[in-house]
Amino acid sequence: MRIVVDAMGSDQAPAVEVEGALQAAQEYGSEVLLVGDETAIKKELEKHTAVSNKISILHAPERIEMDEPAALSVRRKRKSSIVVGLDIVKREEADGFVSAGNTGAVVCAATLSLRMLPGIERPGIAIVIPTLLGTSVIMDVGANINPKPLHLFQYGIMADAYCKYILHKENPKVGLLNVGEEETKGTEFVKEAHTLLSESKLNFVGNIEGRDIYTGNVDIILCDGFVGNVILKVSESIIDTLVKALKNEIKSNLIATLGAALASSAFNALKKKMDYAEYGGAPLLGVDGRCIISHGSSNPKAIKNAIRVAGEFKTNSVNKHILEELETY
Amino acid sequence: MRIVVDAMGSDQAPAVEVEGALQAAQEYGSEVLLVGDETAIKKELEKHTAVSNKISILHAPERIEMDEPAALSVRRKRKSSIVVGLDIVKREEADGFVSAGNTGAVVCAATLSLRMLPGIERPGIAIVIPTLLGTSVIMDVGANINPKPLHLFQYGIMADAYCKYILHKENPKVGLLNVGEEETKGTEFVKEAHTLLSESKLNFVGNIEGRDIYTGNVDIILCDGFVGNVILKVSESIIDTLVKALKNEIKSNLIATLGAALASSAFNALKKKMDYAEYGGAPLLGVDGRCIISHGSSNPKAIKNAIRVAGEFKTNSVNKHILEELETY
Repeated sequence: MRIVVDAMGSDQAPAVEVEGALQAAQEYGSEVLLVGDETAIKKELEKHTAVSNKISILHAPERIEMDEPAALSVRRKRKSSIVVGLDIVKREEADGFVSAGNTGAVVCAATLSLRMLPGIERPGIAIVIPTLLGTSVIMDVGANINPKPLHLFQYGIMADAYCKYILHKENPKVGLLNVGEEETKGTEFVKEAHTLLSESKLNFVGNIEGRDIYTGNVDIILCDGFVGNVILKVSESIIDTLVKALKNEIKSNLIATLGAALASSAFNALKKKMDYAEYGGAPLLGVDGRCIISHGSSNPKAIKNAIRVAGEFKTNSVNKHILEELETY
Repeated sequence: MRIVVDAMGSDQAPAVEVEGALQAAQEYGSEVLLVGDETAIKKELEKHTAVSNKISILHAPERIEMDEPAALSVRRKRKSSIVVGLDIVKREEADGFVSAGNTGAVVCAATLSLRMLPGIERPGIAIVIPTLLGTSVIMDVGANINPKPLHLFQYGIMADAYCKYILHKENPKVGLLNVGEEETKGTEFVKEAHTLLSESKLNFVGNIEGRDIYTGNVDIILCDGFVGNVILKVSESIIDTLVKALKNEIKSNLIATLGAALASSAFNALKKKMDYAEYGGAPLLGVDGRCIISHGSSNPKAIKNAIRVAGEFKTNSVNKHILEELETY
């Protein structure tokens, strides 16, 4: 398995990407092609004693920054790590692509370069979230902020394949995010998506509300990319806020401080469960290839797991399963 | 001050409403007219030794249930506590209305009965949330799931008045919820709202993201009612989920259990800060009258505070301030 990693993507690039690649090479035997500033990548590699012969480097002199406009930067920076890296996957010289860089740029470049799977109109990002019962998937979390009802139906098909063949869930339950459970609720967009999903062969359980997301009662939560993006960012921030607020409360009280020290084992165990790095990034589904988008603040473990997941998408033929399912409609 | 309370609204109606009304009469000297099933209300009142002479009852034989379709139930159940109660405010026989019932039905009945403030096109629900720095307001959280850019601009004007004259914040900072900070981000709807808000006299700081909501960096977060509704419900559920997950972790470990017992004072202090009941419900802004919508799971304190806030809307002439501000455009 040979995976291309955008070495210039994350907030701490290329250190995090280099370490993640080395871990993936060691743990999974993955071949990794690091694309980016050759000098910077080499410098990082030199910090590690056990340099793997499975790691190679391809120089890409340009970098798309986090705050650059997606479409424009992809058009202008043809020698960026994102554009160069995806072209290698396009030419089938590698099996998948991983980037913790500018999400919009990755979506745009992947769509232009890899093109869509036949029959799929728009790509979507599927992300795994921890819930009370295990994990669920939200799709889309920002690839497509203005989707049509048909796109949500296709997200259902794709997220279903992701759940079955990567997360190994049987017959995943699909819910449509809405402001109420009744069929009559919501915008015209959501109502039309409800009709399409009801007529599908998915295990569609109907509308769900914001309060149902973290209960784990459904395996797949479908929503437009604007709402999905907000949910994801609110969730991250509310956890941070609660932890900070709790620390402030605890500091102001000596007995509580002692108690908190004792309770910290529980906090840490919980933190591990909530650890996004475990799930290794979010696949961009719908493109004709394998592309995993990781968080900008990824650590090496997150990159390592993203490389693993990119490989599993090939091994488990996820795109083939999506196409076979689509053909039955 | 005379406030009408829908006695049949909350999940534990009319017990919660009766106790909240008695508390408001005692603490603030409010006159409260409880509207609903007279027998049930009387039965609840009899449970309290110190019955106030400030409490009166108006019989309304019908009740709109939580899961009934809003518009239809308001048209059909003309003798429901919501419709009857709002008509009293319409006739100016009371100063405001409080309900913990079916939100959609309250919005619909209030819009039909009280009508809109001149110049305001749509009502919106403004809700106070706790943040790291104190409190902020999100508007709209579900009155209008398909707004136009102009509605968001008007929400800005109304939430600004709410912040200034009820929450006593000077020159509140207004943010527009989007998927990125740059002006070029988002749907056409959000971009047009951005333009209108930029040209306004509000203290508009531009786009904010989901991760900024709980930091408290802005005082007012503007969004469409679909997104606002999802945010609110996700926030509630994620706090519940974290507490449950933490309890599960703690149970599995004896030292952590001891620690948690000691830390519980901190948890309780935090819980108080996060306590929605403190803020007494969410005003429906834009209607020509005063209408406070409380959570279905309200406790007596939440009802008491909602009665207080309804009174403050009159005392502090919030609607007059909104109209004066609108006239300057």
